[in-house]
Amino acid sequence: MVSKTDSGKTYRNECTGHALETVKSHTEDQDLTLFGSCFCPFVQRVWVSFEYLQIQYKYYEVDPYKKPKDLLEVSPKGLVPGLKLNNFHPPRALNESTVILEYINDLAVTSNGRSLLPPTTNPYARALVRLQCDHVNRSLVPSFYRYLQAQDQDSQINGGKEFHESIEGLVELLERTEKEVVRIDGVSGAGERKALAVGLGLWIPENEEDLGLVDVMAGPWLYRATNVLKQYRGFELPRGEKFDRWTSKLFNHPSFKRTCNTEDLYLDSYERYAFNRLNTSQVANAVNSGRGLP
Amino acid sequence: MVSKTDSGKTYRNECTGHALETVKSHTEDQDLTLFGSCFCPFVQRVWVSFEYLQIQYKYYEVDPYKKPKDLLEVSPKGLVPGLKLNNFHPPRALNESTVILEYINDLAVTSNGRSLLPPTTNPYARALVRLQCDHVNRSLVPSFYRYLQAQDQDSQINGGKEFHESIEGLVELLERTEKEVVRIDGVSGAGERKALAVGLGLWIPENEEDLGLVDVMAGPWLYRATNVLKQYRGFELPRGEKFDRWTSKLFNHPSFKRTCNTEDLYLDSYERYAFNRLNTSQVANAVNSGRGLP
Repeated sequence: MVSKTDSGKTYRNECTGHALETVKSHTEDQDLTLFGSCFCPFVQRVWVSFEYLQIQYKYYEVDPYKKPKDLLEVSPKGLVPGLKLNNFHPPRALNESTVILEYINDLAVTSNGRSLLPPTTNPYARALVRLQCDHVNRSLVPSFYRYLQAQDQDSQINGGKEFHESIEGLVELLERTEKEVVRIDGVSGAGERKALAVGLGLWIPENEEDLGLVDVMAGPWLYRATNVLKQYRGFELPRGEKFDRWTSKLFNHPSFKRTCNTEDLYLDSYERYAFNRLNTSQVANAVNSGRGLP
Repeated sequence: MVSKTDSGKTYRNECTGHALETVKSHTEDQDLTLFGSCFCPFVQRVWVSFEYLQIQYKYYEVDPYKKPKDLLEVSPKGLVPGLKLNNFHPPRALNESTVILEYINDLAVTSNGRSLLPPTTNPYARALVRLQCDHVNRSLVPSFYRYLQAQDQDSQINGGKEFHESIEGLVELLERTEKEVVRIDGVSGAGERKALAVGLGLWIPENEEDLGLVDVMAGPWLYRATNVLKQYRGFELPRGEKFDRWTSKLFNHPSFKRTCNTEDLYLDSYERYAFNRLNTSQVANAVNSGRGLP
């Protein structure tokens, strides 16, 4: 049943479900503090990565719409995620989810050997992953918001079509990567294929547990498609054996699941977008004014 | 003198000046073929990097508006730059300037030790460089086109203001990087500062010859600001001792200079944008329709 009436619900500022359990076990001071907001998909990217890369962190919930001073100190536009680096004197900070992701991946590679990217010895595989991520950032993510904020029927139909095509574009890149990196001529042994699949993420059948950068980049919006877009736009993710297996592995991955709230939190938090309320967020305003995301 | 009348000139498809000399010395088959167009700033990013990183390549001029079949094979949207990898069987390909840049940087790091990024042992410096590049891609580059395509006086004034502010935002990030990575407490020796400056590019006074990723990412548009925006919008880059020194080191760097055409080529090629002619390019159309760049 698609919601047709704005009930006036607004964003939450406390995690629920699995995410709440994870918050409770990350309240102690650490070298790194993640400034997050429970509903935010850009935060979830970083949060999943912290869990997967096994880097210590403290989770700190902030209200990005109230722009508290400590958030502005780590993220000049007051956007989450922000990362505070307490091991520097004075403390330093980073913002932008994509930048923070590369940073904590660099930390992991040098500290515990874990990584969301293929190794540097396979630069072509790394490049194909970056091509996937570029598509997620410049097509999938903006089209999610355009679709969710579309109000009249025509633009909702176009928005759904565009979002669907963007997912298909991602699938093409995933399939191409598998074909050009894993299923290449002369490779037939399971062990050799598994070695070539390192860092390519859960799309590749050989990877049952190994998250890749594209999983982390796209996952939060694909997940919100299954609840927010379903509720407010009647959207269904594309079906297909391979696609279903991918999203199932992703949504049930322990690192992903530990950052997920209960469904009601997402539905409440995104009603503002679904009815395109005035000044919902910097992201919503950018979409309404035809600018790139902030 | 600002040009007020559309003289109907169009883009060129043969390099001139220093760029032509470079093309002539890169006609032999190599493992990597760069599909480029002489006027294109996204191509120039990659081209400068090939020169700086000392990676062998063949330059191959294509007309991206005619979408030749061999270009579509390496770049699905028919956009330049495209990169063909001839050492694979069958040949493989990459597109998107940012993806190609990371790829050839990975190649250089593992083959000859050259790099446009700080070393992995300095992950915070790497992250600050990525933050600079993110600003270039999501603010500086789109604001350049919005300014150049603006037709009425009000939007040209706003466009100029926005482009100027975007440059100032980049300068803030460059200054922050210098302060937080090079001029840190306890570091006073010239050798130690020089070591910390590795990969941070020409903004840092210690780096006289060492290009960084941000130089390569931003340089082509800053350069076109000095000819195209000057001619068609009367724009002048911000002045200041440090800014002047940076742009002078950048524009006169041998690797940058070798990819520069004569001024007339840029003025001719960008008249289409300056008068916002219909269907100038995919980039121009995206800007006109308030979408992210393709």
